[in-house]
Amino acid sequence: MRFWCEYAWLPDGPAAGVAITVDGSRIVSVEPGVPREGTVLAGLTLPGFANAHSHAFHRALRGRTHADGGTFWTWRERMYAVAERLDPDSYLRLARAVYAEMVLAGFTSVGEFHYVHHAAEGKPYADPNAMGYALAQAAAEAGIRLTLLDTCYLTPGLEGGELSRAQRRFSDGDAQRWASRVDDFRPEGLARVGAAVHSVRAVPAEQIPVVKSWAAGRPLHAHLSEQRAENEACLRVHGRTPSELLADLGVLGDGFVGVHATHLTDKDVALLGGSGACFCPTTERDLGDGIGPARQLADAGVMLSLGTDSHAVVDPFAELLALEADERLAAESRGHFTPTELVAAAARHEAIGWPEVGRIAEGAGADLVVVDTESVRTAGSEPLGVPLCATAADVRDVMVAGEWVVREGRHLRIDRPAAELAAVIEELL
Amino acid sequence: MRFWCEYAWLPDGPAAGVAITVDGSRIVSVEPGVPREGTVLAGLTLPGFANAHSHAFHRALRGRTHADGGTFWTWRERMYAVAERLDPDSYLRLARAVYAEMVLAGFTSVGEFHYVHHAAEGKPYADPNAMGYALAQAAAEAGIRLTLLDTCYLTPGLEGGELSRAQRRFSDGDAQRWASRVDDFRPEGLARVGAAVHSVRAVPAEQIPVVKSWAAGRPLHAHLSEQRAENEACLRVHGRTPSELLADLGVLGDGFVGVHATHLTDKDVALLGGSGACFCPTTERDLGDGIGPARQLADAGVMLSLGTDSHAVVDPFAELLALEADERLAAESRGHFTPTELVAAAARHEAIGWPEVGRIAEGAGADLVVVDTESVRTAGSEPLGVPLCATAADVRDVMVAGEWVVREGRHLRIDRPAAELAAVIEELL
Repeated sequence: MRFWCEYAWLPDGPAAGVAITVDGSRIVSVEPGVPREGTVLAGLTLPGFANAHSHAFHRALRGRTHADGGTFWTWRERMYAVAERLDPDSYLRLARAVYAEMVLAGFTSVGEFHYVHHAAEGKPYADPNAMGYALAQAAAEAGIRLTLLDTCYLTPGLEGGELSRAQRRFSDGDAQRWASRVDDFRPEGLARVGAAVHSVRAVPAEQIPVVKSWAAGRPLHAHLSEQRAENEACLRVHGRTPSELLADLGVLGDGFVGVHATHLTDKDVALLGGSGACFCPTTERDLGDGIGPARQLADAGVMLSLGTDSHAVVDPFAELLALEADERLAAESRGHFTPTELVAAAARHEAIGWPEVGRIAEGAGADLVVVDTESVRTAGSEPLGVPLCATAADVRDVMVAGEWVVREGRHLRIDRPAAELAAVIEELL
Repeated sequence: MRFWCEYAWLPDGPAAGVAITVDGSRIVSVEPGVPREGTVLAGLTLPGFANAHSHAFHRALRGRTHADGGTFWTWRERMYAVAERLDPDSYLRLARAVYAEMVLAGFTSVGEFHYVHHAAEGKPYADPNAMGYALAQAAAEAGIRLTLLDTCYLTPGLEGGELSRAQRRFSDGDAQRWASRVDDFRPEGLARVGAAVHSVRAVPAEQIPVVKSWAAGRPLHAHLSEQRAENEACLRVHGRTPSELLADLGVLGDGFVGVHATHLTDKDVALLGGSGACFCPTTERDLGDGIGPARQLADAGVMLSLGTDSHAVVDPFAELLALEADERLAAESRGHFTPTELVAAAARHEAIGWPEVGRIAEGAGADLVVVDTESVRTAGSEPLGVPLCATAADVRDVMVAGEWVVREGRHLRIDRPAAELAAVIEELL
């Protein structure tokens, strides 16, 4: 397949008149400055975006928690109530529709931070990975690359106590049993497996190295300092911040991604150099987390990625704009990340173990997103500015691994994703 | 005309099965809980939104100032360069397309904070209100209610100096001459005239009462403490904050709207009780202004409204979500404004002199916005949460003063607003 793009976003930024040749699931040539020819992709063609942090089932809460006030912690009670009702069948149906929404928005991969492993009271399903397979099937049907970040979740907090009813579904008992379950999880197709430590709250320090050692070369994610309360408890119990604790446990560095990384000390930022950090700005706004030090982290050598997390919003453009905008609010100045840095962060498939995807370049995975540059939102912008004006509603076509999954704003494999969302959410709530 | 709405947003929040009868430009009856009948408006019908702070020509900069870094003040240089190129003909064409974009997004009125009055070097046009009439014509063609907030702009800053080349186009020389020009401005149709003091930077303290006294019962707006530098200069020159200065000049109170109100002291907040404040959250993010004390102002009895200001984003849902979200970021907790308060702020036509508009209620102006509740963005939300999930792309139908201007997402009077935007911006830049 060969396409001529009016504009294409190359690793250095937008270029005009770019011919892209795709063979199978790979881009085999990229030629900028070519006269118009053959099959034209009007508008701006970007690399597919990576949704590096997802809890698919949180989508059920969108538009249902705004009247209540409260905090992150009271919101979590609502979220647990949904988690309690999921089973492999309903989770397949919910995640399939959520992943379809993601592809329609321009995401071509998703890192699913998955911890709802077991049935009520923590009883394993007949196949203990039944929930993971439901997610893998959902992703396959929706046409999105999946990294199942299988999440170890053992304790309710740093200071002991009993797992709540909902949390008992998350626990494998200990990290060894977590590892042996995950060893048996072998999804097919465009799916990979990574690991996650839910947080320093949910895995005892002495068991964290078991997860790290299982991960070995695979992505290893952890929620990190999203809330001040986590930092305070970690200091009380371990005399160290969560980043310090993870550093001391040998967890940081290549392959590690700290999710949120909101409330960090300067020392934490330095320790995270060489690791990744996944910001989820629209969720961090929704949950009142605060504004993390994104620019400071990038300057310290942290690889930034983006995720839609709770799916209050599913829109890669909203996340990349918010990364920059919230830095502007905190700093009271403009232009902290270049548009090229923002697009690169939003296309950081490497953070979830797809290092070959996320660039329009020879040899890269053929994941493309075509954005309408003639909508009321994008009209008048220069190509460099389009990612900061566009929204998910401007995504026209999406190719994943060499196959069109979205054309003219319609998902080719799932007829009515919004109706599927409404139906399964109605059933779960 | 009689419509049956699946859901309609009444002054207390959403209700199911609402019959609305419109006679001419007014709503004459609203009956909730009625069985489905007649002409059905599926989804959620909201009151039309008020864009209480607009500089139409700033739309030309969307997607063109992100590579430069800098501050509010360097951005302003770029903005002045566009201002210098406008004339009544190009401003008509630009504003017509910008206002069409607004109506498509669900705005049914706009408060145009208008200060580009004169030709190069401040020479008046043959009709000194030619630019104002261009804006009035643009609004009429786009089908949006206009309040032209004619803006007095006389000085480059609090500490003296010469007006720049661009700024000379803004000045009438003194406030008396400003008032006599505005006296002659009599737009027709759905247009009203209000007044603005650009800021305490741009109008000498002793001339501000002239503008206040001209306004007499009409809206009077002023940029207020958007930047710390303004506060600092005002303290140096007047020994008072901008809010204190305006209070001492007798400007605050009914009819007054402070725009931005970002960097306020507790005393400023108290002084503003009984006035209005217009937040422009997406612009305040874009320009790195900071997060203003919206909840504190509301609690002090300030009437909040919303505007898209620089039009980096034109989406009433983005503004109302951002008002709440940025408060969450600052406070690190959730739920500062109820959805009903947020919709009321976004529909505050009263802030720009249309007190009869902005409610779905008997006797109110017939401005309605029908939102798709079956998009991937809104599906699954409860009606109360829809305004926090929807985007401008979910707006299906818009009625202004009893006439449909947008149907099925298409502007009925302007065929290709995005193409018009692109063409005139290309010409201006």
